[in-house]
Amino acid sequence: MKIALGLEYDGRDYYGWQLQAGVASVQGALEAALEKVAAGPVRVHCAGRTDTGVHASLQVVHFDCAAVRPATAWVRGTNAHLPDSVAVLWAKEVGEDFHARFCATGRHYRYVLINRPVRSALQAGRAGWFHRPLDVDRMQQAARHLVGTHDFTSFRAAACQASGPVRSLSRASVRREGEKVIFEFSANAFLHHMVRNMVGALVHVGKGGADPAWIAELIELRDRSRAAPTFSAAGLTLCGVDYPEHFALPWTHEGEAGR
Amino acid sequence: MKIALGLEYDGRDYYGWQLQAGVASVQGALEAALEKVAAGPVRVHCAGRTDTGVHASLQVVHFDCAAVRPATAWVRGTNAHLPDSVAVLWAKEVGEDFHARFCATGRHYRYVLINRPVRSALQAGRAGWFHRPLDVDRMQQAARHLVGTHDFTSFRAAACQASGPVRSLSRASVRREGEKVIFEFSANAFLHHMVRNMVGALVHVGKGGADPAWIAELIELRDRSRAAPTFSAAGLTLCGVDYPEHFALPWTHEGEAGR
Repeated sequence: MKIALGLEYDGRDYYGWQLQAGVASVQGALEAALEKVAAGPVRVHCAGRTDTGVHASLQVVHFDCAAVRPATAWVRGTNAHLPDSVAVLWAKEVGEDFHARFCATGRHYRYVLINRPVRSALQAGRAGWFHRPLDVDRMQQAARHLVGTHDFTSFRAAACQASGPVRSLSRASVRREGEKVIFEFSANAFLHHMVRNMVGALVHVGKGGADPAWIAELIELRDRSRAAPTFSAAGLTLCGVDYPEHFALPWTHEGEAGR
Repeated sequence: MKIALGLEYDGRDYYGWQLQAGVASVQGALEAALEKVAAGPVRVHCAGRTDTGVHASLQVVHFDCAAVRPATAWVRGTNAHLPDSVAVLWAKEVGEDFHARFCATGRHYRYVLINRPVRSALQAGRAGWFHRPLDVDRMQQAARHLVGTHDFTSFRAAACQASGPVRSLSRASVRREGEKVIFEFSANAFLHHMVRNMVGALVHVGKGGADPAWIAELIELRDRSRAAPTFSAAGLTLCGVDYPEHFALPWTHEGEAGR
């Protein structure tokens, strides 16, 4: 049978999602815990392979398994074997046609930046930090240029393994909440480091380093070397994944838990 | 000269505020960093001695020091020597009559409880957790009985070293924000474990274990053995301290930073 899981994790303790020899990964921690419940080997596949230090408030994964367990065992049993920094939110048996990555039609990321003169102890590892004042209205104007279907080469890491640089961004918003500046991005899919590079470019606009229209120029240039530095992983959280309704998954977006 | 500091810390990594031989304390970490800036021994005094695992978004401390440094050195220099989990927010020279603890006229604490069936990975160490449904309206009704000047013996840890059990609580509020239940308490001062014991009693009411009026009975009983269990330290944050205006300190409450 095939099982889908909703997953939450604090990425601070991990060298990213993907299993790597000799270092801690979220995939490795999850598979080890699931194997105790399944009493056999388990290989999981996720919707979005997050980088080192990146968090998830709602990641979706699936795995195939011969063992038959009630959903509560996949949730509570697995949580009992997981470290505090990873938690299974829900489990549901899905049809053979489900794949966490290939069936996902959209991904949602949030980036939180602490904007104040001194670093934050309570947000260490959980938010980025920028010490100079930022004009959030300018940043929001700039963000509008990102929305649409574009060649995002200027925001793509050199190591990106995607087959092409074109993505459709349906949302790019920037707002201030007290000392936090909160960015939200939605797209069909994202390139490697794309969110952190967009945040870097928007911060460059927000501090007065460029006009909002510079973002449109950057997209046109298709040249990563012309953009701003990649922002730290600490502030980035995968907070939702879209799937076609017919899979009837439990909530796949942060904050949608049926209470 | 005498210097006051505003301080933020994540209590997870520390066996509480107070210096203890052989274990990490916030006081120990702060004094070690200040001594590098001062180039000599420093002894700090705080407004509220937080327990193991308890956080501060705004703690106030002071110290006496022969070294003369600009305020920026006490902030940026000290932060450069502190671990990520502690940050100095501001520094200000104060008069000889200032004492962070004895001049404080009020303290403000917040308790955050995650209320959902499964534990939270992203809030691990930063919030308490209760897995069954809670009726927040009942909890708010119950909390009203706590406000006022009372003998808080029923909410006082056995190890409490305060000279008496009477405290004046000016605020006790409970509200829900999504899956979080947020408690806020303000008092002239608090007894040992008093907030975590009040949270335990309010949760007992919220889950239907007692009527809101039980809180008034508990206060009357003056018997710790009759109250509910102490809630975990993880959810507790010292978020502000009141001082007489004539000390002209920078902000001493979370969120009051002059932007």
